[in-house]
Amino acid sequence: MIKTPYLLFLGDAPDGLAAKVAQGIKDWRPENCVGQFRMEGCKADLGLTDMTLAEAKEAGAKTLVVGVANRGGKISQAWKKVLVMALEEGFDLASGLHNLLRDEPDLVAVAEATGRALHDVRVPEVEYPIADGVKRSGKRVLGVGTDCSVGKMYTGLALDKSMRAMEMKSTFRATGQTGILITGDGVPLDAVVADFMAGSIEWLTPDNDPDHWDVIEGQGSLFHVSFSGVTLALIHGGQPDALILCHEPTRTHMRGLPGYDLPSLEALRDMALPLARIANPACVVAGISINTQHMGEAEAVAYLEALEDRMGLPAVDPYRHGADRLAEALAAL
Amino acid sequence: MIKTPYLLFLGDAPDGLAAKVAQGIKDWRPENCVGQFRMEGCKADLGLTDMTLAEAKEAGAKTLVVGVANRGGKISQAWKKVLVMALEEGFDLASGLHNLLRDEPDLVAVAEATGRALHDVRVPEVEYPIADGVKRSGKRVLGVGTDCSVGKMYTGLALDKSMRAMEMKSTFRATGQTGILITGDGVPLDAVVADFMAGSIEWLTPDNDPDHWDVIEGQGSLFHVSFSGVTLALIHGGQPDALILCHEPTRTHMRGLPGYDLPSLEALRDMALPLARIANPACVVAGISINTQHMGEAEAVAYLEALEDRMGLPAVDPYRHGADRLAEALAAL
Repeated sequence: MIKTPYLLFLGDAPDGLAAKVAQGIKDWRPENCVGQFRMEGCKADLGLTDMTLAEAKEAGAKTLVVGVANRGGKISQAWKKVLVMALEEGFDLASGLHNLLRDEPDLVAVAEATGRALHDVRVPEVEYPIADGVKRSGKRVLGVGTDCSVGKMYTGLALDKSMRAMEMKSTFRATGQTGILITGDGVPLDAVVADFMAGSIEWLTPDNDPDHWDVIEGQGSLFHVSFSGVTLALIHGGQPDALILCHEPTRTHMRGLPGYDLPSLEALRDMALPLARIANPACVVAGISINTQHMGEAEAVAYLEALEDRMGLPAVDPYRHGADRLAEALAAL
Repeated sequence: MIKTPYLLFLGDAPDGLAAKVAQGIKDWRPENCVGQFRMEGCKADLGLTDMTLAEAKEAGAKTLVVGVANRGGKISQAWKKVLVMALEEGFDLASGLHNLLRDEPDLVAVAEATGRALHDVRVPEVEYPIADGVKRSGKRVLGVGTDCSVGKMYTGLALDKSMRAMEMKSTFRATGQTGILITGDGVPLDAVVADFMAGSIEWLTPDNDPDHWDVIEGQGSLFHVSFSGVTLALIHGGQPDALILCHEPTRTHMRGLPGYDLPSLEALRDMALPLARIANPACVVAGISINTQHMGEAEAVAYLEALEDRMGLPAVDPYRHGADRLAEALAAL
């Protein structure tokens, strides 16, 4: 569990895209963000108050979150200077970089001396159990995709936001590094050892109020041969009551797999639902989330309307039009 | 890669069952076994020549394999004495115990001093790639089960044996600790990090002669919620050309999951084949392997005959009747 609120470290980001993790935190959990820390030459700007470490500390920030990709595959000495000073000022550090904070002897030594925590969210910090398959109380919804990177995290966050706005009980359950940094907690599923994958998701989504929804962040795709096992562990560990089908209509082949076509949404439904019903016979497909970022507004609206007719399910782009109709579909279950 | 041949260490096994790993090695790779090493009070006997360390060394043994389960969750001092002496005599050590050899400082120190290797086959020794899904040359067959522990490893080893006897080109590809100790090589799939599961199986089953078969050891079950993700990674990383359905007809519920019924063989076929065809559209179900150990001979034969009629596929118990008919089915593809 990463202590909030955060000071977002944007480093010397060459552009806004390099700081997309920080952008995600600011978009979805603005209440967790006290301000931003930018180094000389930083080209990213989240529109948050620029703060020194001391100012952020004074404003209540507990953790400095590395919200920016590093360059050249190493943590530069210029960054290190800030990170060490942050530890000395009393901040914990959190990062999703491939280069782990814990692999830097100077950071480890200063963190030990100052009693601060280093959170590498790519690495599990918990010994997860083996899944026992026992039914848990409360409701769960999971996004499953025709492919990787079609907007499953975004769908989950938007759905959680809509559900809260409708005064439904909802918790977004992060299963990837960006989601973990956004919410401060979760399971880095792609880094969990095979035998414990499903168990880690049971651990993440425990018994809850009967009318509470865990919105579980999806990963991979049953149709993506590199990561399909991760997806199935998520389905069987999560025991979802409802699936949201996620799709990006302009993709020409599976991400990173040029020889592989994307499945249809019907094929996804017909593969995912029987698998989900092994763990939860009551599971249904509740709606469809379409990433229309490469379509014009008229084209997107026409596509979604035709899809609703074809599949008999609410179909929305949560970025363009919000996720309220998906939340309503869950409320109606 | 563990160096063969082996001296099989049976320790102070309280009965034959405790030495079932050693039994498996002796049953399936007798040519790898120079002899057995038994301590005082050992109740297991593989029928191999009892040897001292010096005698086994003289006879050519390269590795002392711990072929017995330990008691009390630790490696006893009595065992340690033998293991240290074996290192001093020039043996490598190999073990599938939960307690790792590498976690014992004395074994590590002596192995370092003598230049010997410690193989803990529960732990991956390779940095596996992420799967790229590219089609490989050669043929692959995989056993998929209605449940865990229904005889998938046995089926694979028996099939490999039958295929070799028929002068087909075949290699058994181990994916679990016992299989790895039997063959000296493989991937401990249940211990691989999620993102690399499918890639580890691509690594294990590389390009080969067009008429060569990799017989891939199955793991878990698509219907076993604790481990189904491991099974799907195996299906998508292995790209099998043929599946063998594996089943134990007297099981009353999924292993370790009292609330879960076993699927029918038809349900297994209808779930596994479409998933396998994502990675290899030419995949077929080639036959059925039934573990009839809890049935009488007449009952077993009647069950298998009825099953052949029902499913239109060769159905055998490879332990009772050999796997030749499964090998013939593959040869006919």
